[in-house]
Amino acid sequence: MNRPDIQMTRAGLDASLPVAAVDEHRRTRQQHIAAERPLTLYIDKREIVTLMTLGREPELLVLGWLRNQLLIDRPERIRSIQVDWETDSVAVTTHDGIDNLDSRLARKTVTTGCGQGTVFGDLMDELDRIRLQQTPVRQSTIYALLDTINAHNEIYRRAGAVHGCALCHDDRVLHFVEDVGRHNAVDTLAGRMWLEDIDGAQLCFYTTGRLTSEMVMKVAQMGVPLLLSRSGLTQMGLDFARRLGVTLIARAKGRHFLVYHGAEHIVFDAMPEDTRPLKHRAAG
Amino acid sequence: MNRPDIQMTRAGLDASLPVAAVDEHRRTRQQHIAAERPLTLYIDKREIVTLMTLGREPELLVLGWLRNQLLIDRPERIRSIQVDWETDSVAVTTHDGIDNLDSRLARKTVTTGCGQGTVFGDLMDELDRIRLQQTPVRQSTIYALLDTINAHNEIYRRAGAVHGCALCHDDRVLHFVEDVGRHNAVDTLAGRMWLEDIDGAQLCFYTTGRLTSEMVMKVAQMGVPLLLSRSGLTQMGLDFARRLGVTLIARAKGRHFLVYHGAEHIVFDAMPEDTRPLKHRAAG
Repeated sequence: MNRPDIQMTRAGLDASLPVAAVDEHRRTRQQHIAAERPLTLYIDKREIVTLMTLGREPELLVLGWLRNQLLIDRPERIRSIQVDWETDSVAVTTHDGIDNLDSRLARKTVTTGCGQGTVFGDLMDELDRIRLQQTPVRQSTIYALLDTINAHNEIYRRAGAVHGCALCHDDRVLHFVEDVGRHNAVDTLAGRMWLEDIDGAQLCFYTTGRLTSEMVMKVAQMGVPLLLSRSGLTQMGLDFARRLGVTLIARAKGRHFLVYHGAEHIVFDAMPEDTRPLKHRAAG
Repeated sequence: MNRPDIQMTRAGLDASLPVAAVDEHRRTRQQHIAAERPLTLYIDKREIVTLMTLGREPELLVLGWLRNQLLIDRPERIRSIQVDWETDSVAVTTHDGIDNLDSRLARKTVTTGCGQGTVFGDLMDELDRIRLQQTPVRQSTIYALLDTINAHNEIYRRAGAVHGCALCHDDRVLHFVEDVGRHNAVDTLAGRMWLEDIDGAQLCFYTTGRLTSEMVMKVAQMGVPLLLSRSGLTQMGLDFARRLGVTLIARAKGRHFLVYHGAEHIVFDAMPEDTRPLKHRAAG
């Protein structure tokens, strides 16, 4: 494994905090809510953007954001990532600067993405170079994975205002990240894959969030051919999945799921009993 | 009512489209998914940003976006808003240009917001000028409103990948908007309030989405003192509500809700029967 030598702080913070709320019985209750912190990113002392984050793994978030925005093409270009919560800032220093930073920052798209929603520069061009290889996926593996993931949605259940994403292999969760915006969670996982030189080709990406164009793009950039969501999808999410060759499974919860693209790669080895009334079955 | 005379197209499009998906029984099913379209905004022929939207009320979305980004301070400054789906673009022309457009566009914050997530320039300064007046809210009115809203979440139920927002008075829904990002929905309502010169002081804002800092900020900018959400909230959403004087009610669904700020303004006139076991009640 080829790990770049980046000097990083480990400035992760607690993800939720207790506050009092009054319920419908006029009772005061202690509730946990999700933290949300501004983190202003500087590259070689130049201010780039402010991200709002849970703050759990800020260094990986920044690393993945730089990758997914195509601002930096190799992690080896980065000397250090230093988070300082006193000033809510993160300083990234590179070895040799970034070429054409101005033009890379110039074009922006404000997306539907829950979370960051800003994609700079050359992303659409980059996507034309991506073609993912598909491998068969067993229905029984999907079910086993959903059971595993269920145990991980910790802050979501507690605070209910975050999104969870997981990088998975078969029925195992390799890394699980939650953040206030799901694009932060995706970027944090992308940062880890970069740092640890993880190949996405055999992996599955799970998210609690919706499958929008930006979500599909980011997962494809990470080389992951299978995207699984508890939520729904949008038209452009589907368009991108078709174009990039991402198998797209939405509404995955319990024993239910809907394959919107790549159904030919699913091995239906664990079909649940059909409990619908006959007239519905006949209608297909 | 003082309506600005803006020439606008009416280029709203269908919000969902049918596609085929394969379910866990390997049955092909027709499902509706949410449309998601890019819309590139030009102001006086200068490209500003690309928004991703459902495309239902694109003119109002753009108007509200310009307002909430503080790029334009009065709707009367706008001569026309022309949407053209052939080129996925919208051309805004002003009467006299926009002062300091460059510096207004320079600072950006990428927020947690599901949706647009980019707040330009002077927003934080603007917020220091906002103090909202509270009026009492009856619990029975909240329940009646939740029942009304339940009937409106049409695309959400159908396609499940959009957020709904509503501008409400007492138990009535004045305007209901859905979009792929909830900030689009908020901006579209803000656009309508601006165009129709609607005062927010007596209104309630409902959203299916999470109450993040950006959500609370935008609602406060619209002068609405009461924010009701089916989802949870974040720490900064709560901080902003305290600072701006927004009554914040989260987890509002059925007969349940949690008041995180402004509980003293709630009139508890319809408390449901407490059906919890005695031991839980004692723990209160």
